[in-house]
Amino acid sequence: MLSNAQSKYIRSLTQLKYRKQDKVFIAEGDKIAKEWLSSAAPVQMIVATQDWADAHHPLIKAHHEAELCIVTEQELEKVSALQTAHKALLVVPMPEAEQKIPDTGWCIALEQVQDPGNLGAILRIADWFAIPQVFCSPGSVDVYNPKVVQASMGAFLRVDSQEIELETLLHRQPELPVLGAVLNGDDLFAAPLPSSGILVVGNESKGIRPDTQRQLSHRIAIPRAPGGGAESLNAAVATGIITAFWVNRTSS
Amino acid sequence: MLSNAQSKYIRSLTQLKYRKQDKVFIAEGDKIAKEWLSSAAPVQMIVATQDWADAHHPLIKAHHEAELCIVTEQELEKVSALQTAHKALLVVPMPEAEQKIPDTGWCIALEQVQDPGNLGAILRIADWFAIPQVFCSPGSVDVYNPKVVQASMGAFLRVDSQEIELETLLHRQPELPVLGAVLNGDDLFAAPLPSSGILVVGNESKGIRPDTQRQLSHRIAIPRAPGGGAESLNAAVATGIITAFWVNRTSS
Repeated sequence: MLSNAQSKYIRSLTQLKYRKQDKVFIAEGDKIAKEWLSSAAPVQMIVATQDWADAHHPLIKAHHEAELCIVTEQELEKVSALQTAHKALLVVPMPEAEQKIPDTGWCIALEQVQDPGNLGAILRIADWFAIPQVFCSPGSVDVYNPKVVQASMGAFLRVDSQEIELETLLHRQPELPVLGAVLNGDDLFAAPLPSSGILVVGNESKGIRPDTQRQLSHRIAIPRAPGGGAESLNAAVATGIITAFWVNRTSS
Repeated sequence: MLSNAQSKYIRSLTQLKYRKQDKVFIAEGDKIAKEWLSSAAPVQMIVATQDWADAHHPLIKAHHEAELCIVTEQELEKVSALQTAHKALLVVPMPEAEQKIPDTGWCIALEQVQDPGNLGAILRIADWFAIPQVFCSPGSVDVYNPKVVQASMGAFLRVDSQEIELETLLHRQPELPVLGAVLNGDDLFAAPLPSSGILVVGNESKGIRPDTQRQLSHRIAIPRAPGGGAESLNAAVATGIITAFWVNRTSS
């Protein structure tokens, strides 16, 4: 059972200011909870139904540091940040963010990406293609928003993410190539691509800001098929296409 | 102003059964409304604020067939299916669906895709890469769900979509190649790909059903980078990567 104070605490974490204050966030759902508990990452609180806790006893036992609360599905629903509550919810400390782009130079930098589903999908892309860092400009959706965590499917355990002004990021290691998709950019499939670098992803409706566009060393575009009508692709889809092709070209 | 009956009618269209019964759906938002009114597609009802209607007078005038309702933003919010209401909302007839895959053979077939954002993003992918048809198995999210329409960004105007059992679809033109992403599939970037065909996209958590997998002529996979950790990519992202690479390979 959850005390009133515990319920209030968990619900407060759906708000950015409380997450920032307490440096923790919510990881919810069977799959994410299992993955998190199987990792070495610390856990502050485990909230689960009795049957889930029974089924995952060894995982829970391995986390002495965590407070365990057994709840009914109804109780869980009340504190859940998701439309459909699951059988387990964790409160976990935010990982320490790396301050430097790794020397390999692969990273993704988001400029005011607004949609939680997009950010979660981009974290999964980074995770899949072994890109260790995703930077977010202030004004992007918070990476610890429960919908982002849900959509990222555990990518948080392996992909480092932090908020930083893109200008600061791009000036910090100016030798790194900077790629971005822009109108009239060079054909992604034909253009010369650097062996690694920073991929800048712009806002869903406005794209990459003109100031940031001037910092791009490689202006690319995903060619639209003759007869194609859409004005643009979804931001996460475009990021996936560019990353997949770039990583594949570089590794082959 | 909207009458009670009009408000009730529009709100009913957030439900699948009323959309099916009346064969109409809601297209909401400034961009989609403009694009729709600029096209030759018929419109049943235009609900807009006075300033929006003034700014788009010629577009509205061109649609004599439509009933025009001028409303306040507050009124629009009450009938909107979206979290944030916009300045214009259209009620439009569902287009007649094509019964046959075009002879060029390009289409996307979805098997129980559940997330409206994913379906919308996939319609945009089809639109961008000039794939004229997207088929959805029964059990997929409805293509006329307001969130799908919103995420598709006007793709409905150019991409034909309809519900059909995948088994029926695959038996109808058995000469067409059928691609699908599966565990241990051949490397997308290295495998031989047909010059066109049907791309099957599976459910977000379960992938392509075993029965359908047996019908694939080309079993492919997006290679995960060494050191990558994610279990999978988002369904729309994976669809984008496969489609982009396939279309590009075929056209070059």
